[in-house]
Amino acid sequence: MDNFVFDNYTKIIFGKKTEETVGEEIKKYGSKILLHYGGGSIKKSGLYDKIIFSLNSAGVEYIELGGVQPNPRLSLVKKGVDICKRENVEAILAVGGGSVIDSAKAIGLGALYDGDPWDFHARKAIPERMLPVGTVLTIPAAGSESSDGSVITNEDGWIKRGLHSGCMYPTFSIINPELMYTLPKTQIANGCSDIFAHLAERYFTNTKGVEFTDRMIEAAMKTVINNAKAMVDGSKDYDTWAQVVWAGTIAHNNLLNTGRVGDWGSHNIEHELSAHYDIAHGAGLAIVFPAWMKYVLKHDVSRFVQFATRVFNVENDVFNPTKTAMNGIEAYERFLQSLGLPKTLSEVNIGDEKFELMAKQAVEIGGGKQGNFVELKENDILEILRMAK
Amino acid sequence: MDNFVFDNYTKIIFGKKTEETVGEEIKKYGSKILLHYGGGSIKKSGLYDKIIFSLNSAGVEYIELGGVQPNPRLSLVKKGVDICKRENVEAILAVGGGSVIDSAKAIGLGALYDGDPWDFHARKAIPERMLPVGTVLTIPAAGSESSDGSVITNEDGWIKRGLHSGCMYPTFSIINPELMYTLPKTQIANGCSDIFAHLAERYFTNTKGVEFTDRMIEAAMKTVINNAKAMVDGSKDYDTWAQVVWAGTIAHNNLLNTGRVGDWGSHNIEHELSAHYDIAHGAGLAIVFPAWMKYVLKHDVSRFVQFATRVFNVENDVFNPTKTAMNGIEAYERFLQSLGLPKTLSEVNIGDEKFELMAKQAVEIGGGKQGNFVELKENDILEILRMAK
Repeated sequence: MDNFVFDNYTKIIFGKKTEETVGEEIKKYGSKILLHYGGGSIKKSGLYDKIIFSLNSAGVEYIELGGVQPNPRLSLVKKGVDICKRENVEAILAVGGGSVIDSAKAIGLGALYDGDPWDFHARKAIPERMLPVGTVLTIPAAGSESSDGSVITNEDGWIKRGLHSGCMYPTFSIINPELMYTLPKTQIANGCSDIFAHLAERYFTNTKGVEFTDRMIEAAMKTVINNAKAMVDGSKDYDTWAQVVWAGTIAHNNLLNTGRVGDWGSHNIEHELSAHYDIAHGAGLAIVFPAWMKYVLKHDVSRFVQFATRVFNVENDVFNPTKTAMNGIEAYERFLQSLGLPKTLSEVNIGDEKFELMAKQAVEIGGGKQGNFVELKENDILEILRMAK
Repeated sequence: MDNFVFDNYTKIIFGKKTEETVGEEIKKYGSKILLHYGGGSIKKSGLYDKIIFSLNSAGVEYIELGGVQPNPRLSLVKKGVDICKRENVEAILAVGGGSVIDSAKAIGLGALYDGDPWDFHARKAIPERMLPVGTVLTIPAAGSESSDGSVITNEDGWIKRGLHSGCMYPTFSIINPELMYTLPKTQIANGCSDIFAHLAERYFTNTKGVEFTDRMIEAAMKTVINNAKAMVDGSKDYDTWAQVVWAGTIAHNNLLNTGRVGDWGSHNIEHELSAHYDIAHGAGLAIVFPAWMKYVLKHDVSRFVQFATRVFNVENDVFNPTKTAMNGIEAYERFLQSLGLPKTLSEVNIGDEKFELMAKQAVEIGGGKQGNFVELKENDILEILRMAK
């Protein structure tokens, strides 16, 4: 096990009706805030009214900035930074999913910085402080509600960049699974695929002596496997949702990678798919991750046997570990398909015309390679894309 | 699943040689500190010298207060409070196990309070702020290094009282498993028993819909089971130790009871044993907990079947759930015995002469009862003690 520092200070307020406490909670950090949200679904659902009522009751003054898009954009971040500086905003409240929260974090950094807000994501400046960011989560999976990360897209060149810093954990996050029941079926499936992928990226490691985090990751994986189908099928059972939503937060809050190095190759390959095609991140991961697994299987068959037997209860054929491992990967594929997720690129009408380009760009971002469990070069990524065809 | 707030802000610095960073770390919270420790084992081991070197290198001024005893005492807490007030101490560094850390927390509360430091533990005052407490952990199990609790004994009447508050998490904790290799064999066994008991207290709940935390607790239990024997047998393998030590911290940091109500009956029965006899907490739990399990088994056989099959890999006799459950409890007993822990009170020379008294006092502290999974009255506790005879 590697040395580690775990320093996640996000206060989690989890459960039914917890959104009603948002005014009192954010008031601890400021009496004038930026209220940040997306495309208006929170107005349709009635959540917006509840938030406004709570803010007013607590005497919190708010300035609204809606319109965050999936793959949140720098132009809106800049608008938010301008508002924060001009109006002396003291805290930011992000109401939405990962995109809104990521955007709020970028605004929070920019508000306390004199230069261009893009400097941080462009690695020209190191984040040291951020306005307090509180969140009310409406979409599970991204994990940004208790992570130290933010991904922003610069429309000038359409450059998408992730950033992590110890100062970028939200101050608090309010998580009420009830707010998520009405999400579209495909979005629920994509979310479950993304949560599982966050766990799998951490699971496939070369670090030895990590039994405890292995088992914790397996616990979260099994929880997702056991509950995801019911959610996609329209369940409004609180406990079913609460298991997966809480597991989704823990999956990405850095606890499950304490003392170990994750892989992240599949995520980076998928980012190329999302960049070049109109495919949701979770759907892309459902296609890429099993292909990646088959490609890297030989690197550490034992770890895949552990994955197969412990996570998917595959019977261990001790005379044929590779077969056991493959059975595990196929069980993972069946799980994804049971949620209605695609298995191949052709199913989502993605041809091979950009395979070379995507493989090239994926390794460019990673300095000539991607992945830690197995280091992938351009050719390896090309091969994985072909296997996913 | 119940609503919950999870707000654990302790920064964990985990790994080899991490104690060397203590000066730089504590300096963030103050340049004049109270250095708090126990009976001097840290001087024998050389840890004391390393800490002093690190504090000096960072330019941190320290005032020493050693002498913390197991079941840390109010008189020393008062001494510490006086020093902090008189010398304008800005932070406290606790070097030791749970007793030293608990004592440091009580001092940290008292230092910012005008009244009697006992007021908090006596429920006459509500803790609202504490001097920053940093820790260097030398004994695993108590969990105080990342918990919100402190147990102090008032020598005036020998009253032992626990206290919990959101302001009582340590600011940081440095955890290097290497510092623990030289602990006596019995202390390691007791520690493993205590960690397992912290997990089991959380596991046995009436709260429905808690699959995720169930599985996380099981992950930690299996980790302890798989590594404890080697530790007791003298292993100096870092990874073996690191699994259990990290699991021990997580076992008691409130994550694994998010959204559920634990039992804590066995802990409270054991506290009576420790109060009346010279028996270590972990050894007492090894005797009490299996007896408690057998006594309450019928309350929820299914939960005990889950414990047996998932934690101890007992084969599930679906035609006889009670037998399956009992096999699980017996597997737990065999695990404890494999560590050299006692199975019965008679093994540790405790007779039945104080059974009535202990049962009476145990429920007195709990307002006429103890336990949440099953509410125990005086008679129930008496019966459990008899079963442990």
